[in-house]
Amino acid sequence: MKSYQNMSREELLQEKQSLEEAYKEFQKRDLSLNMARGKPSKAQLDLSMDMLTVVDRDTDMDVAVNVDARNYGGLVGIEGARELIASMVDAKPEQVVMGGNSSLNLMFDTVTRGMISGYLGNTPWCKLDKVKWLCPVPGYDRHFAVTEHYGIEMINIPMTEDGPDMDMVEELVSSDPAIKGIWCVPKFTNPQGIVYSDETVRRMAALKPAAPDFRVFWDNAYCVHYLYDEVKIPNILELAKEYGNEDMIFEFVSTSKISFAGAGVAGIVASKANLDDIEKTMTVRTIGHDKLNQLRHAIFFENGAKILDHMKLHADILRPKFEVILETLDRDVKELEIGSWTKPQGGYFITFKSLPGCATRIITLAKEAGMVMTGAGAPFPYHKDPEDAYIRIAPSFPTVEELAVAADLFTVCVRLASVEKLLSC
Amino acid sequence: MKSYQNMSREELLQEKQSLEEAYKEFQKRDLSLNMARGKPSKAQLDLSMDMLTVVDRDTDMDVAVNVDARNYGGLVGIEGARELIASMVDAKPEQVVMGGNSSLNLMFDTVTRGMISGYLGNTPWCKLDKVKWLCPVPGYDRHFAVTEHYGIEMINIPMTEDGPDMDMVEELVSSDPAIKGIWCVPKFTNPQGIVYSDETVRRMAALKPAAPDFRVFWDNAYCVHYLYDEVKIPNILELAKEYGNEDMIFEFVSTSKISFAGAGVAGIVASKANLDDIEKTMTVRTIGHDKLNQLRHAIFFENGAKILDHMKLHADILRPKFEVILETLDRDVKELEIGSWTKPQGGYFITFKSLPGCATRIITLAKEAGMVMTGAGAPFPYHKDPEDAYIRIAPSFPTVEELAVAADLFTVCVRLASVEKLLSC
Repeated sequence: MKSYQNMSREELLQEKQSLEEAYKEFQKRDLSLNMARGKPSKAQLDLSMDMLTVVDRDTDMDVAVNVDARNYGGLVGIEGARELIASMVDAKPEQVVMGGNSSLNLMFDTVTRGMISGYLGNTPWCKLDKVKWLCPVPGYDRHFAVTEHYGIEMINIPMTEDGPDMDMVEELVSSDPAIKGIWCVPKFTNPQGIVYSDETVRRMAALKPAAPDFRVFWDNAYCVHYLYDEVKIPNILELAKEYGNEDMIFEFVSTSKISFAGAGVAGIVASKANLDDIEKTMTVRTIGHDKLNQLRHAIFFENGAKILDHMKLHADILRPKFEVILETLDRDVKELEIGSWTKPQGGYFITFKSLPGCATRIITLAKEAGMVMTGAGAPFPYHKDPEDAYIRIAPSFPTVEELAVAADLFTVCVRLASVEKLLSC
Repeated sequence: MKSYQNMSREELLQEKQSLEEAYKEFQKRDLSLNMARGKPSKAQLDLSMDMLTVVDRDTDMDVAVNVDARNYGGLVGIEGARELIASMVDAKPEQVVMGGNSSLNLMFDTVTRGMISGYLGNTPWCKLDKVKWLCPVPGYDRHFAVTEHYGIEMINIPMTEDGPDMDMVEELVSSDPAIKGIWCVPKFTNPQGIVYSDETVRRMAALKPAAPDFRVFWDNAYCVHYLYDEVKIPNILELAKEYGNEDMIFEFVSTSKISFAGAGVAGIVASKANLDDIEKTMTVRTIGHDKLNQLRHAIFFENGAKILDHMKLHADILRPKFEVILETLDRDVKELEIGSWTKPQGGYFITFKSLPGCATRIITLAKEAGMVMTGAGAPFPYHKDPEDAYIRIAPSFPTVEELAVAADLFTVCVRLASVEKLLSC
């Protein structure tokens, strides 16, 4: 294959015509494909079906002194669930407070608490004229939706292969007291699948923020979500302690993509001072989260001991899905020099970076041939991708057979949009 | 028995001596009784054990088009759960949005939304100098904790046999735009077990608030929690519609005291405009609440059809507990003229009103003989009972045998504290 960059106008026109024909063939097939969201597939959900009945009428419900798993109480969560969450990120159970069925609502509630109550006695942000937030891009759209919801000004931080651009993060955080937080997915980032380097984690833990209530929102969403071998990153809370920054870290962990996406359990890992602060609000908000679901998880995963085995079963289902996309891109796009992409070792996404100005067009072409993808701009604050180049590919939900078709269609859309772009220059 | 009011000092001293002896006998018994919280007993929790396994690997998980109960999605809740909640308060399923495992967190989040986002485009309360709230007293301590948490000024509204003093409510609400809400438990109030009269409900629905964002927080916590026959109250949302006040009502409903106190389901019933407003925030906070638990409830209660039958089983357990307390009070306290109490037809509490200035002493005496009761002042904002007279009795958790002892001890404490008080005058 010849690079599009080296093609004459004539050659590009010819390529365009043949691509348009291929595209029309796809349109005729009346496809209904969806690579928009990082949803587990039915096969993955089926892996946890035995969990549904591990708590039954014979279960010992006395999960602690005077705490019946069915009744009120047990604000911070049952011991087994705290152990489970702690085991996933090498924390101690006493560093964990359990939340509801997902980490997103824990993150939302934590930002809310900063807005309205303030952390550890600091001024609530709603009383300030301006609050800013650092957003490594591309990133997770639902993170950005939370800060946008509260009118927090979001600042893009470019991603490198080692994580966010730490020179920029350090400079901004140490100089601007209006900056109150940064969104981080340290392991298998959403959407690029990047793993923060040890150095990045250390520099993050060592930040010297101008704001005393600056917090690193460490969303360790894919902490055990390996496609191949295990990948380790340093324990940021331990590192932060070395720098006297223990209170600067909120780590979020959930089983949404381990057990059931709609009915998992989630927890926050934080310093003692932060946990006390969290519990002060939590005890007003609830008498306790769902301890029966915590108990199901604790029993099914043996307080964490079974997690890695279980994740291997997920990996067996997900790996071929990632590979069919990557192999198709390698085969049909690589030599054309019209884009680049990540090859994640875990997580839920592949990110394709097109020629500048092509992402919206590619996604529109896909849609008009029956394939829904994450909207262009979604991985950026305010849905604005300055280059209009990033496309998040979510291969988890469709079957491998569907993905083979999806990948073929995607490469046709990429090639067609790229030819159009090159011809328009 | 002779009324203490008619006793001579001599007689009172003699009575005191004999009560002190009786009290010491209780102290010797090394009792461990608890009537502090409205917790269901183990026998009540046992009623729903079959629910634990109604969702299993054979269950049809496709609860809606493209919605697998195990996966992400279904923000407002599954249809069967919305039907269940609606059935309990004569609402329509489309008027319901489901929340997490309790209504307390829905109420907390709703106040939070008023504080930080504002209702239907109104100014968020955190931007105002002063926000006030009406609190019928005695009332539910966890309600008052929410408004206290946000620094909202709470105004006591006396309760009558028909509900809150509506003359006072109408005057305050129509004249002061800083008043943004009122806490109401309309049926079997916490802690008195009072049922709002039809007239009270109508007047509440017809309020003409000075603040456009004033809301009635209608916590219908005991809507189907009868001890004897069914008791009906008017549907406030329908009434409010007649007065053009549909957006003024948030109704909260939960199964915490129907299925499992720690693992129920809850919902908000509200107008279309309010539901849309709620969902705008909810969709940022979560991708959906626990649909598997919703499905368990929908199946077990047949979308609501089985609720009243199930509540009769609860009543059979609770009724003797209420009666042993009430019979003991009738027998040992009534003729002494040292207090009055309610005789609820439903709900979870009895309220004893002592002579002024005796509640703290009674509760202390009980504690020092091994019986924990709800703290004095708890049913009032800021924990301040102006009369120091109200004591909430929660008979649900102990066994009938324990309650027989508890009731005897309680009446001794009441009589002793009353004698002490009368002697000190």
